[in-house]
Amino acid sequence: MTIITLTTDFGSADGYVGAIKGVILSLAPGVTLVDITHAVPPQDVRFGAHVLSMAAPYFPAGTIHLAVVDPGVGSARRGLALRTAWATFVGPDNGLFTPFLDQRVACKALTNAAMHRRPVSPTFHGRDIFAPVAAHLAMGRPLADLGPEITDPSSLLAEAPRRLPNGRWLGEVIHVDRFGNLVTNLALTGANVKQTAYVHIAGERLAVQRTYADGAPGALLALVGSAGYVEIAVREGNAAERLGVRAGAPVELEEL
Amino acid sequence: MTIITLTTDFGSADGYVGAIKGVILSLAPGVTLVDITHAVPPQDVRFGAHVLSMAAPYFPAGTIHLAVVDPGVGSARRGLALRTAWATFVGPDNGLFTPFLDQRVACKALTNAAMHRRPVSPTFHGRDIFAPVAAHLAMGRPLADLGPEITDPSSLLAEAPRRLPNGRWLGEVIHVDRFGNLVTNLALTGANVKQTAYVHIAGERLAVQRTYADGAPGALLALVGSAGYVEIAVREGNAAERLGVRAGAPVELEEL
Amino acid sequence: MTIITLTTDFGSADGYVGAIKGVILSLAPGVTLVDITHAVPPQDVRFGAHVLSMAAPYFPAGTIHLAVVDPGVGSARRGLALRTAWATFVGPDNGLFTPFLDQRVACKALTNAAMHRRPVSPTFHGRDIFAPVAAHLAMGRPLADLGPEITDPSSLLAEAPRRLPNGRWLGEVIHVDRFGNLVTNLALTGANVKQTAYVHIAGERLAVQRTYADGAPGALLALVGSAGYVEIAVREGNAAERLGVRAGAPVELEEL
Repeated sequence: MTIITLTTDFGSADGYVGAIKGVILSLAPGVTLVDITHAVPPQDVRFGAHVLSMAAPYFPAGTIHLAVVDPGVGSARRGLALRTAWATFVGPDNGLFTPFLDQRVACKALTNAAMHRRPVSPTFHGRDIFAPVAAHLAMGRPLADLGPEITDPSSLLAEAPRRLPNGRWLGEVIHVDRFGNLVTNLALTGANVKQTAYVHIAGERLAVQRTYADGAPGALLALVGSAGYVEIAVREGNAAERLGVRAGAPVELEEL
Repeated sequence: MTIITLTTDFGSADGYVGAIKGVILSLAPGVTLVDITHAVPPQDVRFGAHVLSMAAPYFPAGTIHLAVVDPGVGSARRGLALRTAWATFVGPDNGLFTPFLDQRVACKALTNAAMHRRPVSPTFHGRDIFAPVAAHLAMGRPLADLGPEITDPSSLLAEAPRRLPNGRWLGEVIHVDRFGNLVTNLALTGANVKQTAYVHIAGERLAVQRTYADGAPGALLALVGSAGYVEIAVREGNAAERLGVRAGAPVELEEL
Repeated sequence: MTIITLTTDFGSADGYVGAIKGVILSLAPGVTLVDITHAVPPQDVRFGAHVLSMAAPYFPAGTIHLAVVDPGVGSARRGLALRTAWATFVGPDNGLFTPFLDQRVACKALTNAAMHRRPVSPTFHGRDIFAPVAAHLAMGRPLADLGPEITDPSSLLAEAPRRLPNGRWLGEVIHVDRFGNLVTNLALTGANVKQTAYVHIAGERLAVQRTYADGAPGALLALVGSAGYVEIAVREGNAAERLGVRAGAPVELEEL
């Protein structure tokens, strides 16, 4: 049976997520619902995009990913369904699906009101537009029924790392995870790491290690995270607190 | 397959929710479990009732809603199973199901011990009474097997809005959601809103808008929320923090 | 269909849990995923073991419990699959499964790389080793295919209560739950409680009651919790805050 995953900033306390689940299960009985997260910080589209990039690629081909981080709900921002070779993404056209734009094979605006609940609340498109669209797709409805092609889906500005005059790469912290690990946008192939790379952050210079266990308990270390990017961590501790650093902080990578 | 939803104040860290899920899946293999929330503030029955009112109506007919917000567990308060034309609710008889009392077609006390786990812990009826009852209902057990009819289920006192001498309606904030939006008990038909209604709260007078996007970023606005009640919000901000207001605060609605 | 439960310290905001779910559903289509918790405090193996002990025994026979609280990921600590007569546990060999060690009928090291994803990230064995192993088991793969028997699985040091010269039992608070209830390691058979036992904690002497409802609202009380151990609670309040007590605090049980 088709899988629909859910990624939102609705939190887990209010009834919004439950309403969305109910709408989907009413239109697509037997679909498998999977929570990715409902704890995206309120209206933090970039955070939501990062979580999707970490989780969506591991799901079976054909999975539908419903995502709602939507500060512009009710405005002129479009809704969309974006299809790649391996998944379909449904949600607002505000950059939330930036990690997958390059792989798209189709992208439809959600203009066909026959695919929506009625009436559509101007403040809750998650329940009234995105959930029913995802459910209809799960039931086999073709993408073409949703609306016209979008050729210019919104993309988040991404600051790619750039080369400094001294030969280092300048990147930034793009995500702080629950453990206080600082995830950067600096890619490094873990297989090749032989302590020949260093990370500069908040006045510290850290050799890139293979794993958390290569650091002493309580010591700062840098390593290549599970997605292939440099992270700064404290073994059995919290690097974000230790360094007083958050998303957006500059990081430099020095390869010897 | 039958759906059982879960709404509790158990939080997500402890093992209580897992125990309930295990009991249900042991008695009703193949049932579809759906988390609505486990983050109702501890023992806040009114909050739980509000979440149920926001989510339950969207589920398929025949869904069973198990809800446990139960400060009186182990006391003389009854357990009940309340049936409407479209759903069955199982939990403590403490007002948690107030939003659905008017629609009930049957309401049974959970006195038949053959429908419970044994022994019943006096502190965990969620695991030992409500979960097995929900599972037995999902397996097709008739409501009549649970116990005798309850004719006087508990109801939360609801302060209905009242008309003031100046013609305004006086209501209150009944819920503060994750975004800091203030949900009131003042109903207004969104379709008819043409900036001819104003909300008075915490010294502010706010025209009722159609959607969040009608406000400037950072500005206070009032609108009709997805459930048909007036809400006060800040676009890309937090109205509860801005106004220093929480559940119970008075709100006035002025229609011109 | 086989059930796989998930118990982690990954939190609910990041994409880690979603990645694990995706890996499982890709390898074991149709498996039933059940979240027990993802809110174990970061790297708190003892807390994770307690949650598992509270929830796992209630699941149907044959359930697979995947648990990841893994401060030593990437180090020499082993991964394991531990089987009892009623369940299989998959995760790091760091004491997380201590409550079930006595009941094990088999325990395998996860050394067979054919059962893992490739490449294995040194920082995310949950996604690359434990999830695929759990999925393969759910698909009927025999335990013997995972790796050699482990005869010395890690166990958490447990401070058993000890008898004091004055005849009391000295135990400790092992868990503080969401309600601020203090769960101890002092067992007492609830059926036999007739107000003939007293608990001493933080300078208070409390008679053991049958249920929360036996205390006045706001008053401290002791009772036998749903797992058979003495708990200290405040009816409609928070005992941990009231007493300024947390996990590890000494508690004495006096039986008359």
